[in-house]
Amino acid sequence: MAMGAGFTLRELARALHATLEGDAAAVVIGVAPLESAGPDQISFLVDARYVEAAKASRAGAFLAGPEVSGLPAPVLRVPAPQQALIELLTLFHPPAEAVAGVAPSAVVARDASVAPTATVGALAVIESGAVIGPHVRIGPLAFVGAGAEVGEASVVHARVAVCARVRLGKRVVVHPGAVIGADGFGYAFDGEAHRKIPQVGSVVVEDDVEIGANATVDRATLGQTIIRRGTKIDNLVQIGHNVEIGEHSIIVAQVGISGSCRVGRGVVLAGQVGVADHLTIGDGAVVAAQSGLARDVAPGEKVFGTPARPLIEAKRIFVLEGELPELARRLRSAERRLAQLEARLGAGGA
Amino acid sequence: MAMGAGFTLRELARALHATLEGDAAAVVIGVAPLESAGPDQISFLVDARYVEAAKASRAGAFLAGPEVSGLPAPVLRVPAPQQALIELLTLFHPPAEAVAGVAPSAVVARDASVAPTATVGALAVIESGAVIGPHVRIGPLAFVGAGAEVGEASVVHARVAVCARVRLGKRVVVHPGAVIGADGFGYAFDGEAHRKIPQVGSVVVEDDVEIGANATVDRATLGQTIIRRGTKIDNLVQIGHNVEIGEHSIIVAQVGISGSCRVGRGVVLAGQVGVADHLTIGDGAVVAAQSGLARDVAPGEKVFGTPARPLIEAKRIFVLEGELPELARRLRSAERRLAQLEARLGAGGA
Amino acid sequence: MAMGAGFTLRELARALHATLEGDAAAVVIGVAPLESAGPDQISFLVDARYVEAAKASRAGAFLAGPEVSGLPAPVLRVPAPQQALIELLTLFHPPAEAVAGVAPSAVVARDASVAPTATVGALAVIESGAVIGPHVRIGPLAFVGAGAEVGEASVVHARVAVCARVRLGKRVVVHPGAVIGADGFGYAFDGEAHRKIPQVGSVVVEDDVEIGANATVDRATLGQTIIRRGTKIDNLVQIGHNVEIGEHSIIVAQVGISGSCRVGRGVVLAGQVGVADHLTIGDGAVVAAQSGLARDVAPGEKVFGTPARPLIEAKRIFVLEGELPELARRLRSAERRLAQLEARLGAGGA
Repeated sequence: MAMGAGFTLRELARALHATLEGDAAAVVIGVAPLESAGPDQISFLVDARYVEAAKASRAGAFLAGPEVSGLPAPVLRVPAPQQALIELLTLFHPPAEAVAGVAPSAVVARDASVAPTATVGALAVIESGAVIGPHVRIGPLAFVGAGAEVGEASVVHARVAVCARVRLGKRVVVHPGAVIGADGFGYAFDGEAHRKIPQVGSVVVEDDVEIGANATVDRATLGQTIIRRGTKIDNLVQIGHNVEIGEHSIIVAQVGISGSCRVGRGVVLAGQVGVADHLTIGDGAVVAAQSGLARDVAPGEKVFGTPARPLIEAKRIFVLEGELPELARRLRSAERRLAQLEARLGAGGA
Repeated sequence: MAMGAGFTLRELARALHATLEGDAAAVVIGVAPLESAGPDQISFLVDARYVEAAKASRAGAFLAGPEVSGLPAPVLRVPAPQQALIELLTLFHPPAEAVAGVAPSAVVARDASVAPTATVGALAVIESGAVIGPHVRIGPLAFVGAGAEVGEASVVHARVAVCARVRLGKRVVVHPGAVIGADGFGYAFDGEAHRKIPQVGSVVVEDDVEIGANATVDRATLGQTIIRRGTKIDNLVQIGHNVEIGEHSIIVAQVGISGSCRVGRGVVLAGQVGVADHLTIGDGAVVAAQSGLARDVAPGEKVFGTPARPLIEAKRIFVLEGELPELARRLRSAERRLAQLEARLGAGGA
Repeated sequence: MAMGAGFTLRELARALHATLEGDAAAVVIGVAPLESAGPDQISFLVDARYVEAAKASRAGAFLAGPEVSGLPAPVLRVPAPQQALIELLTLFHPPAEAVAGVAPSAVVARDASVAPTATVGALAVIESGAVIGPHVRIGPLAFVGAGAEVGEASVVHARVAVCARVRLGKRVVVHPGAVIGADGFGYAFDGEAHRKIPQVGSVVVEDDVEIGANATVDRATLGQTIIRRGTKIDNLVQIGHNVEIGEHSIIVAQVGISGSCRVGRGVVLAGQVGVADHLTIGDGAVVAAQSGLARDVAPGEKVFGTPARPLIEAKRIFVLEGELPELARRLRSAERRLAQLEARLGAGGA
């Protein structure tokens, strides 16, 4: 394929297993959003809400699903355009190749194990007994503590801290500044001071998890804090000690999960949600943004608010809160009318 | 001027373009708040709320606006005392001089460009193709990724991460731990797992922007996340991919802005505000602390709450919520009175 | 004692000053929670809520308080089991010994002072005039700025930033990624732009304070931001400039405290609480999770909500909000009944 010079639509159709409608020899040299794409770029339509924007776009070609028609340029037709977009972006922006090896400025303990196919960036620190698996990339200025393990093909970006004994699975991605395995927040007040409860457990992050920039995942007091396979955690999220998060959940930015919570599989915690300690959130539950959980959430339940209520109930209450001034006015009016009736009947009253 | 030994009030009056009321030869050796200032220090009155504190202050001199009288020591009178305070603090605390040059322990790629007047701190990493402009200061342990640019006179503090291809304008300040240009949070669920949508865009930070400690600004999926000129961002703020923030806005600590939002010029987002994705916040809008935005905000609008309502309405509702116990009691009472009336009229009732 | 091979219950009873009920020669080799402990491990019961779990546990021994009976294995009986648990965990998990000395890869300014008993980790940076006290541990990739002081036996973990002139007391613990002493968020709008107010103060952290991962504590504009003795601060907390927090307070994850607040002694701010600037929170006050403070809180007061109300009132209002649909229905019903009464009396009506 003609890298740099772009791709013909024929090449793209083949790579994406797409049906091409239009000039197979046309060339596009990049991918761009509908509003900014030019005639030498391909754009994409992954949501029917944007059909009008697509029809107005100057893009030289489109990636689109089966139901869209009337686009002003050739179309690469696919059954699942969002999945195909991933392929398209990867074609035009292949991940940078990492050269295997340890940067001379990195400080790697003699008894750490670094796979020959792994990359360790400048000024990274790998402590004693740590194990860096095959094809792993450790970014510049990253820290991997004593006895920690980073599984095959994982990426630990610049300035991450993977603390002692933490275990990352395969294809895990940790973004800059994240801290995996700091002490949990546990103290016992002895009448005079808060005495620290040693946090001697660890953190296990399973395969295909992604953890956002400056997020924090605390080690367990005893045992393990666990993030299961495929779960994605956004920036600045806080995960307390002994929490367990199930597979394929989505934890959006600035969420805070207190200690010992059990979060199910396929759960969505939207931005800035807070979860009190020792709660259970069932599989497939959805917690709307900024909600505060003070009770368990059933599987599949959708909740909202602080403290959270069932979503439909919370919405109805929100509307009624907006009507409170009117309700108060109507109550005053009813009281006046009552008083008038009582006055009229007063002679014979109770 | 007598650095170290302090300044006479005459010197200060001249430097601040102030009118001096009192002994021009008096010397002050430092600046201090009203309550802690001593006779050899100058204090300041930038808000009329603190007049009484000023009158009780032991300060040897005051910086004050035109309307204040009765202060117990000489006064440097200026039309805009808060602006003059900036000058005053700068006189007593001139910014530390940085010695140009690259610390021997820094790791700078051979094909990175570092201006001769720039400073690169100990153990900083500057990757391939990065451009460090004149008079820039890169702090110790900071990371500047491949192809990133840091414009003239910007300050990238210790332990900041400026990721690949991010562009910072002139006089930008980034505080320790901030991460500019980590991947946006974008996935497509393929029925089995969340597949990562490559985040191949970048971040542009314009001139005179300041970004707080441990804040995160994600790179765009495609195109750019943009922070426009003069905007100030506090600590631990999260800015999602493809967000655009207009000029001279104020984003207070722990705010989270979801992907693709458009935030206008001169906007204020108070602490811990959350903004759902794809929203537009008009110029000059003010969002009160902890609010959660689920809809657009008009220019100049003031809103509060989760979900946010117009500020005045939200305040009225807050008051009425406080009256809910009383409203419920009154409703019960009205129902009783109704029942009594109905009972009395019951014989002939419906 | 038989390290590695575990401890006999006799040894543990002696170390914990516990009364042993059961076989003094029995050996346990580790500590585990009730649900996962096996016959060669000791578990613990620090909360009566878990008695049933304890009775079902397979643990080989228990640490428990005086009131618990009927446990299925030998019991180490103590008056304060949570305190004894700290000793027990420390016996089985003694803190790693640090070898005193400065790592060859650390960059320590010639005029910095590092106690001979201190440890400075790989690639740490200690700037000019900094003072590192006896038995201090500075982690890898940590930054201690010019003139900063770290008191005896404090632990500054990997990748912490202790900025210029910040002072940490004795036995302070700062977790990875925390930033102590970045500039406060202070600007004066001059009609055209936000001009930065120089933040020339500092931060004082007293003895026995702990600060969580990626937390931020800003330096004062003038004077000092102060965290008093024994206070514990969780991950991702933001403490604004000139804040003062009293002794032995608990600040849970993701709390934000705006500038110039006075937080008392023994205060609890639960997770994600926000505090507006210049407020005073009295000794022993408790602010429930996600609350937003817009007014002072009296000593001992318990508050909840945004804006916060007294806790009991907030709970009552929460219940009544849930009844709003019913209240609205009842109001409509009362209005109908009123109208019917008015209609019946209408002939002779007002």
